[in-house]
Amino acid sequence: MKIVVTGGTGFLGQLLIRALLERGRLSRADGTEAGIEQIVSVDQAQPGRLIVDDRVGYVVGDIGAPHFLSHVLAADTDSVFHLAAVVSGAAEADFDLGMRVNLDGTRALLDACRVQKRTPRVVFASSVAVFGGPLPAVVTDETTPTPQSSYGAQKLVGELLVGDYSRKGFVDGRAVRLPTIVVRPGKPNAAASSFASGIIREPLAGETAICPVEPDTAMWLLSPDAAIRNLIHAHELPADAWGSRRALNLPGLTLTVREMIEALRAVGGDAAVERIQWQPDERIRAIVRTWPARFDTRRADALGFVRDADFVEVVRAYARTYAGG
Amino acid sequence: MKIVVTGGTGFLGQLLIRALLERGRLSRADGTEAGIEQIVSVDQAQPGRLIVDDRVGYVVGDIGAPHFLSHVLAADTDSVFHLAAVVSGAAEADFDLGMRVNLDGTRALLDACRVQKRTPRVVFASSVAVFGGPLPAVVTDETTPTPQSSYGAQKLVGELLVGDYSRKGFVDGRAVRLPTIVVRPGKPNAAASSFASGIIREPLAGETAICPVEPDTAMWLLSPDAAIRNLIHAHELPADAWGSRRALNLPGLTLTVREMIEALRAVGGDAAVERIQWQPDERIRAIVRTWPARFDTRRADALGFVRDADFVEVVRAYARTYAGG
Repeated sequence: MKIVVTGGTGFLGQLLIRALLERGRLSRADGTEAGIEQIVSVDQAQPGRLIVDDRVGYVVGDIGAPHFLSHVLAADTDSVFHLAAVVSGAAEADFDLGMRVNLDGTRALLDACRVQKRTPRVVFASSVAVFGGPLPAVVTDETTPTPQSSYGAQKLVGELLVGDYSRKGFVDGRAVRLPTIVVRPGKPNAAASSFASGIIREPLAGETAICPVEPDTAMWLLSPDAAIRNLIHAHELPADAWGSRRALNLPGLTLTVREMIEALRAVGGDAAVERIQWQPDERIRAIVRTWPARFDTRRADALGFVRDADFVEVVRAYARTYAGG
Repeated sequence: MKIVVTGGTGFLGQLLIRALLERGRLSRADGTEAGIEQIVSVDQAQPGRLIVDDRVGYVVGDIGAPHFLSHVLAADTDSVFHLAAVVSGAAEADFDLGMRVNLDGTRALLDACRVQKRTPRVVFASSVAVFGGPLPAVVTDETTPTPQSSYGAQKLVGELLVGDYSRKGFVDGRAVRLPTIVVRPGKPNAAASSFASGIIREPLAGETAICPVEPDTAMWLLSPDAAIRNLIHAHELPADAWGSRRALNLPGLTLTVREMIEALRAVGGDAAVERIQWQPDERIRAIVRTWPARFDTRRADALGFVRDADFVEVVRAYARTYAGG
């Protein structure tokens, strides 16, 4: 079977492609399993380090450009993982860019799927940023999304399109609202949540990290590994497990920044913690504090989605893989 | 001040323009009142009967066409009432047409508003069709919209855009979810709810009406007059009455088709009722039964929106105005 991963050059995209290659097989929409013959990564740039595997191809381009995706998707594409997005901070700073990539790009992808020979499965990486403003203490499966950022609004529009295109039978779509993914390796990015990885990653690398929010700021977190497992699980569930509700809140862990830093201390010691500098940034605080930090993810739990058992272990796994210890 | 009414040629559009002319004044975004100097109706066709008033102009064109609306909106437009839409049945039958007019048209309108000298107030006519699927017995202000029709999905996307453009300060938007409007004069249209007016209107005109749903089908109804009052009220409320929640469910009345027909009997007698033919239509039933019929509209009530006191009086007012009786 043939798979497309948008945002395939990003950190999660690369992890996902590696996980799919290792797994080797996926379910088709008709319930049968098939071997993975081809994975096409679609992104705005080549990755820094190519995955060397005959099954992987790279296409570079702008998913917000008209007709680009309709040229990219082979007519026999079975599955799409749609991860490409302009991140929260960037979509807030450049409204038109966010609309073009996050909204037009998602719509163009769904339209490209309509002309496929078989109805493709589409896994859409949505975000808990669809929630904002006054919220109940615990967000449940019934809480109405009320985005207070352009990124959140665009992700929610994407969910609605995935839902309606699925209802019409154009795609077999499923949207999962990702918690903040921690620990991301590499460089800080323009996501408002970028600091959440930075305050673990930089100190472990012996570098200074800046924390722009208060220690008691609570966040809803998921490790990269659990995120990848959940994206693949979202794909593998049969359509009737989703029914008419094609979007859900993923499981996660609630931690305050202070608790995250204590996990850093457990892995990297006091020296690591001392590398964190507190520099409040109102722009970032304003976005992050609209995100909910406590969820009851009953529906996702029942469907078999996973959370991390323990945040210290998440930090330890990061240190093992990326920080040489 | 200058006002644009999209869908200004439609029944509600014409009623709204007449009501605005009669009223003569509206609030500006800064809270001051001003006289209405100009109302521009934007629609795909000229109305059958022009409103003869120096203040009213007509522009004919396709709001889904790129750049059309940006040419139409004068740079000093103060307010927009956005009523233009492909109705529910038509948006379901022609997916691309619905997306173009209901989604692209709404976005084009909001983008045209961004370049105005003053931030325009935008009143968006949304619909209770944003609700669908399994719903609580009574829909409240907290019930999550889960559209099960393309029309409903497109209206909800429009609400989200109105919300985010408002948050960004591009417009001062407010979206009201209209109940089914009964009694509409004129011809049946492609709305799945068209029969709800037809079973009153046609019998009062001595003609046969077809009812495609069961007598115990309950609907959430509002008269045209109350709808117009509510659209204008939505405009007149100050921005801080809306806060970060820019969409709400309007008040209405819950009636079964049987109760609607009893109101017809009270006004038109048994002879009128006998002109109704029962012809179940699965396509229409499938759409209508996804719409909720019972609401608790606490927020709208507190903000001063209105409902009809009595459905017999709604039928009587229709008969007086349109059916010569």
